[in-house]
Amino acid sequence: MSYYYNKTVSGDFEKVIENVTLALKGQGFGVLTEIDFSGTMKKKLDVDMPKYRILGACNPGFAYQAYQKENKIGVMLPCNVIVQEVNGAIEVSAVDPVASMQGVGNADLEKIASEVKNKLKAAINAL
Amino acid sequence: MSYYYNKTVSGDFEKVIENVTLALKGQGFGVLTEIDFSGTMKKKLDVDMPKYRILGACNPGFAYQAYQKENKIGVMLPCNVIVQEVNGAIEVSAVDPVASMQGVGNADLEKIASEVKNKLKAAINAL
Repeated sequence: MSYYYNKTVSGDFEKVIENVTLALKGQGFGVLTEIDFSGTMKKKLDVDMPKYRILGACNPGFAYQAYQKENKIGVMLPCNVIVQEVNGAIEVSAVDPVASMQGVGNADLEKIASEVKNKLKAAINAL
Repeated sequence: MSYYYNKTVSGDFEKVIENVTLALKGQGFGVLTEIDFSGTMKKKLDVDMPKYRILGACNPGFAYQAYQKENKIGVMLPCNVIVQEVNGAIEVSAVDPVASMQGVGNADLEKIASEVKNKLKAAINAL
C-alpha cells in the first residue's frame, strides 16, 4: 500500500496550487495551512531544491467525526496535499489517511479515514 | 506502540501554547502552522468542543534529510503537537513520527523519524 495518491500535471506552479485548492473545495475540503517547504529550506538551511508546497486540507465534518472517535487525532490532521516540481513537471500528491493512521489502531477511525481517502482521490482525479 | 507522546499540564491555555512553542524551539523546531481546531469546528459546524489547537512543528535539518530520503514525505510534515483542554486540565501531545510514518516502509526514513521522536519527547518533557 502506498502512503499517497498522486498525479502529474503541467502548467504554471501557482496556477496548479489554485486548481488543487478548487478541486479540494469541490470535495468539501478547505485549505487551512500552506507551507512553502522549498522556501523554508532555502531560508533556514540555504539549500536550493525544486518548488515544494504543502497544503493542509480539512473537511470539517469528517475531522469532527474523527475527533469524536479519537480525541488525539489532531496530531495527524489536517490531511496534506503536496505540490512539487519533479523533473520539469508538477506532481500533486495527497496523503492516504488510511496509511498514516494505521498506527492508531482504531477500527471506527479507519472507516472515516477510508471515506476521506476516497474524497482526496476524487479531488486529485479532478485535476 | 502509541502514536503520540503526551503530558498533562496546568495553567492558562494561551500561556501553555507559548511554553510549548519555546520548548519546541529548544529542540530546534519552529512552529510553521497553527490551527484553532475548536474555533474552526465552531465556525464551520457550529459545534462546541473543548479548546483544541494544532501546532505544526518543523526542525529544518531533519525535514530536509527526510525529503532527501523520501521526496513525498511532505504529505506527513510538519510534526504536529496538539494542546487541548481535557476535563479541566490541559494535555499536550506530540505525534510519534515513527508511528505515523510506518506505512512508508523506508528504513532510512525510520532512523530520522526515530531521532525526531526523541527530540519531540524531550520538548514535551521540558514542559
